[in-house]
Amino acid sequence: MRIFSITTNSNIYASGSCNAYAGNTQVHCAASFSNKVPIFLQKEKKGWISAEYAMLPHATYTRSDRESSSKPRGRSMEIQRLIGRCLRSVCDLTVLEGFQIRLDCDVIQADGGTRVTAINGGFVALAITFAKMMQSGLITKTPLLNKLCALSCVIKDGQPIFDPSYQEDSSADADINLVFTHTGHLVEIQGTGEQGPIQIQSWSDFITESFEKTSEIRKSQNQALAQMGL
Amino acid sequence: MRIFSITTNSNIYASGSCNAYAGNTQVHCAASFSNKVPIFLQKEKKGWISAEYAMLPHATYTRSDRESSSKPRGRSMEIQRLIGRCLRSVCDLTVLEGFQIRLDCDVIQADGGTRVTAINGGFVALAITFAKMMQSGLITKTPLLNKLCALSCVIKDGQPIFDPSYQEDSSADADINLVFTHTGHLVEIQGTGEQGPIQIQSWSDFITESFEKTSEIRKSQNQALAQMGL
Amino acid sequence: MRIFSITTNSNIYASGSCNAYAGNTQVHCAASFSNKVPIFLQKEKKGWISAEYAMLPHATYTRSDRESSSKPRGRSMEIQRLIGRCLRSVCDLTVLEGFQIRLDCDVIQADGGTRVTAINGGFVALAITFAKMMQSGLITKTPLLNKLCALSCVIKDGQPIFDPSYQEDSSADADINLVFTHTGHLVEIQGTGEQGPIQIQSWSDFITESFEKTSEIRKSQNQALAQMGL
Amino acid sequence: MRIFSITTNSNIYASGSCNAYAGNTQVHCAASFSNKVPIFLQKEKKGWISAEYAMLPHATYTRSDRESSSKPRGRSMEIQRLIGRCLRSVCDLTVLEGFQIRLDCDVIQADGGTRVTAINGGFVALAITFAKMMQSGLITKTPLLNKLCALSCVIKDGQPIFDPSYQEDSSADADINLVFTHTGHLVEIQGTGEQGPIQIQSWSDFITESFEKTSEIRKSQNQALAQMGL
Amino acid sequence: MRIFSITTNSNIYASGSCNAYAGNTQVHCAASFSNKVPIFLQKEKKGWISAEYAMLPHATYTRSDRESSSKPRGRSMEIQRLIGRCLRSVCDLTVLEGFQIRLDCDVIQADGGTRVTAINGGFVALAITFAKMMQSGLITKTPLLNKLCALSCVIKDGQPIFDPSYQEDSSADADINLVFTHTGHLVEIQGTGEQGPIQIQSWSDFITESFEKTSEIRKSQNQALAQMGL
Amino acid sequence: MRIFSITTNSNIYASGSCNAYAGNTQVHCAASFSNKVPIFLQKEKKGWISAEYAMLPHATYTRSDRESSSKPRGRSMEIQRLIGRCLRSVCDLTVLEGFQIRLDCDVIQADGGTRVTAINGGFVALAITFAKMMQSGLITKTPLLNKLCALSCVIKDGQPIFDPSYQEDSSADADINLVFTHTGHLVEIQGTGEQGPIQIQSWSDFITESFEKTSEIRKSQNQALAQMGL
Repeated sequence: MRIFSITTNSNIYASGSCNAYAGNTQVHCAASFSNKVPIFLQKEKKGWISAEYAMLPHATYTRSDRESSSKPRGRSMEIQRLIGRCLRSVCDLTVLEGFQIRLDCDVIQADGGTRVTAINGGFVALAITFAKMMQSGLITKTPLLNKLCALSCVIKDGQPIFDPSYQEDSSADADINLVFTHTGHLVEIQGTGEQGPIQIQSWSDFITESFEKTSEIRKSQNQALAQMGL
Repeated sequence: MRIFSITTNSNIYASGSCNAYAGNTQVHCAASFSNKVPIFLQKEKKGWISAEYAMLPHATYTRSDRESSSKPRGRSMEIQRLIGRCLRSVCDLTVLEGFQIRLDCDVIQADGGTRVTAINGGFVALAITFAKMMQSGLITKTPLLNKLCALSCVIKDGQPIFDPSYQEDSSADADINLVFTHTGHLVEIQGTGEQGPIQIQSWSDFITESFEKTSEIRKSQNQALAQMGL
Repeated sequence: MRIFSITTNSNIYASGSCNAYAGNTQVHCAASFSNKVPIFLQKEKKGWISAEYAMLPHATYTRSDRESSSKPRGRSMEIQRLIGRCLRSVCDLTVLEGFQIRLDCDVIQADGGTRVTAINGGFVALAITFAKMMQSGLITKTPLLNKLCALSCVIKDGQPIFDPSYQEDSSADADINLVFTHTGHLVEIQGTGEQGPIQIQSWSDFITESFEKTSEIRKSQNQALAQMGL
Repeated sequence: MRIFSITTNSNIYASGSCNAYAGNTQVHCAASFSNKVPIFLQKEKKGWISAEYAMLPHATYTRSDRESSSKPRGRSMEIQRLIGRCLRSVCDLTVLEGFQIRLDCDVIQADGGTRVTAINGGFVALAITFAKMMQSGLITKTPLLNKLCALSCVIKDGQPIFDPSYQEDSSADADINLVFTHTGHLVEIQGTGEQGPIQIQSWSDFITESFEKTSEIRKSQNQALAQMGL
Repeated sequence: MRIFSITTNSNIYASGSCNAYAGNTQVHCAASFSNKVPIFLQKEKKGWISAEYAMLPHATYTRSDRESSSKPRGRSMEIQRLIGRCLRSVCDLTVLEGFQIRLDCDVIQADGGTRVTAINGGFVALAITFAKMMQSGLITKTPLLNKLCALSCVIKDGQPIFDPSYQEDSSADADINLVFTHTGHLVEIQGTGEQGPIQIQSWSDFITESFEKTSEIRKSQNQALAQMGL
Repeated sequence: MRIFSITTNSNIYASGSCNAYAGNTQVHCAASFSNKVPIFLQKEKKGWISAEYAMLPHATYTRSDRESSSKPRGRSMEIQRLIGRCLRSVCDLTVLEGFQIRLDCDVIQADGGTRVTAINGGFVALAITFAKMMQSGLITKTPLLNKLCALSCVIKDGQPIFDPSYQEDSSADADINLVFTHTGHLVEIQGTGEQGPIQIQSWSDFITESFEKTSEIRKSQNQALAQMGL
């Protein structure tokens, strides 16, 4: 596991923000709330949480075109749908009635694991945002039902490598991203074996071990929240 | 499990095609080959397989805007990336050197499970395309390393419901799509618990049972291919 | 004339639908109504009927790019404007006040005459939709003033060929599409002679003969509607 | 018939240009040639002629959004396809081998009949362009096989009104645009009866009368070309 | 200085319009008012003035692609922001409360100085529009606080050349555009020295001389307004 | 003047990079080179330098939509054109023959002066890039002819305020951005007085004073370059 760390309040204008670091990977996470709820929710007594994910042009080894000047990338769309879904899975959206939280995850440097780092940092930015909303009296209790952490893993020659760098990722056989609550429940799993089948001996052991590997991440998240008095 | 069936040669212009049906869900799958290989592969001795997925406006209960008249949908992008990835995972792309296969999956009716139905039908369209290419002497052996089948599943009140309709899907707790080789190896798993954690007692048992549930799908695929002399 | 046939209820979600076949040409027609009237009509006591037309990527001999991933095609825009205009010409839009009908014509296979086949099938989908709206009590009488049929024709060496296939169309001198009411009135004529002048000896005779050539199409439409109890 | 006039050389940079006026309708027509032939012609021994048509925002009674800031309009696409098709119908494209002519028709003021005015003026701009190309020795003979003129007409209460203004057009029953060679051959007819059937007693008489009505237009075109020494 | 002239009422549909000419440069300026105020002003007691600027495809020596068929050009965006800003700087927007003026500047021919010619003509179109609004009783006094004129200049070998043609512009060292009130106050200056530093001996003298060079432009503007009874 | 500072090597993948800070304003500058020269230069013996500028959604007090999901913003286009122009004005592009430098300026936080901070940081990223290219032997001498610094200023009640924050900027009468070489030559000036005329007593004194105010910025730039051994 690479060193994971979080710097809170990396943005003075957002309601909640942090920079999340995993090795050379760096993601700027910033969340804010507004009272514009998406149209498809207007008849339901619920609020909403959505996420956007993008990479700066120089975030990767070779510069890629700015997302704004071309059509939106399928990969970014897939990832931002994942982030939003996971965050909503640990929140009581009825507490957020009348509000929408928008989380932006902008990748400054990408050395593998950007989507899980975005979830790990994004959760902290979200929790801080909820705290600000409670302080302002906009909501009377926190919508958080659980804390959230995420881990990427690749399988190479039948063995899992947890939290791989880009180099380790690109030479692997299969690729698995897992998202857990801090209480150890799985809320999302995405396993893909483009180079061949996903070879895992015991799925239950693998999932248990994966959760254990997130302990330093959870500790970092808890410390970051504690610094904010949460 | 709903009735699954395949009608081959549903398109006279495509190299390989079929209509795939799962209950009320209907997907038109059509594949063709060309000698335009994507730029990112031009220095590698490999061919490529890509997929596109879209829904007709009236494919759903309420008409949705035509994808052409708005910006591309994140959901469609996510799904077509999945389809392409799974098909490539059972092919030897070096055999396809100099060629690209393009598979179009157009959903005529959507009553749940469109992405797995697209994979199940898309695999058949692909296999027929390979056969045509071999008959024409463009490739000397089939790129197929394995056959492919897919299954959707939801978890409701702790119990799996396999191959759910849209109605069953929308009231479930968690949603899992699995893609297997016909030899029972998992090549893709996407589990998501937006309504709460994914509650599965034994993952290994669940994966084994899921594969067994695809037996009628595999039988249909094999019959369709047999009719084509494959 | 190629064999023309109609299969009604080809879509379970649309208010009215059919597949229309003319030789190898196949068009999926699906209509639905909503209470969203276009802005430009909001001060008038009228409803509206609009159409969309698109081809699936594999509808033609050579695969064409999906319309969604590029800019909208001029040809499709021209055709969908034609379809909508013709349908409106046989309807009393004041009966539809407060409603908009949207008709989607998706070409599954294109072997010449797709625009007239879309009109012939689209008319049937529209008539079924009106019947559904009357059954639901949304309108008190049918907006239909007339029935509609359409025919394509090319001129080759001074002789008309009616209902040409793609092959016959592409080697012709001039190209004429005609749309009639079932009572024989012309509501639209589009003649174009890109390869030279449109050589027609007697226009009146030509128009009369064209209408007579639609007799099997009208019979098919009437049978399809009769099956629906209309 | 409104007064029709042409001012040649309305643009100093174009190879051939004119302003065409029909009553209050005013269209700026400018053509130029290049050696970039469209991809679909690269294996054929032919050149190409294409047209673009657009309206300035203030060309109409109520300002409309600039076409550049929204999606391209179906109406403009339909019209520019018509203009290009008609011009090509009177040219021998093999003489133009290796060249493409691009004609821009920009509507400064629109008071009915913009598409026919664009054809009438566009033909003159094209003829001047061909003359320039011959003077430069780029082509050895003119590609022109014929001259071209166009007329709009509406049917109101069973009677034709030729060259209607916007006011007359919008209250009519049917709308017919005709394009002729100067020798009286019809190359395009577009008749549309959105308000009901197109009621014409004798089509042959109507077409003959229409051609006669273009005599002042043809005279203007010939004078404009004569002024250029053509 | 090239000859500058203005032809008012060049558009019959606009509230105020003119064609502005500076040598071969020609810009069609047309303004209209509506009661749609931009969203960002809805809580303020102010109206708004905005401008759009575009070039026709044949406005330049070599035909450029129509702006509508590609992404919007940075240069046009930069210029239209400049035009709107300058016009607003001489108006009392509170007088315009509830109204938006939209000015379109369409370049018919571009031989240098199109942005300043658009400002010089656009000011006249705006003043006429205000007069029309006062005549209609929509506003009780003119929002105009000042008149506006603009001048382009290049520096070549240390010497200023005022109102340069395209030829003179493209070989210069630096490029300066200045916008003044008729009372000699500077409201905008844009100096750029892409070929090296902007070499100006005395800035105050340069600005004074620039204003003096606008005398013929101001005279033309005043004559044009006088003809309109303003 | 607010505190200005530069952190070099803020991006491990770029050829040259820094974070530039001016008060709360923070811009991530990253440059890289490639051998893809723009088409318009392919016949000239020159290289090219271009810049892109964008704001992250949470860079401002109120979140703004991501530039990727809407049409490109006029303001960003205007600024990135400015940055590229200024950088090119101090470089000998013939030394860069065969290369293009692309500089990305991404605004993390915007509290006024983002465009000048982007130029100040962008210059440093560019200089480091040139050093890397020389070390690799790709160019034999530096293309730099001069160093570059930039300053924003507003005029309030007749008095200049240098390096204003967003708060100070938004309540000012006029807005002036100046770009200088380190030797004191002006290469760009953009003055705009949307709230009224630009009131400056002596332009020469103002320009001289502005240059003097950049001394701390120049010192920071020189220190940053010295740390890199430049």
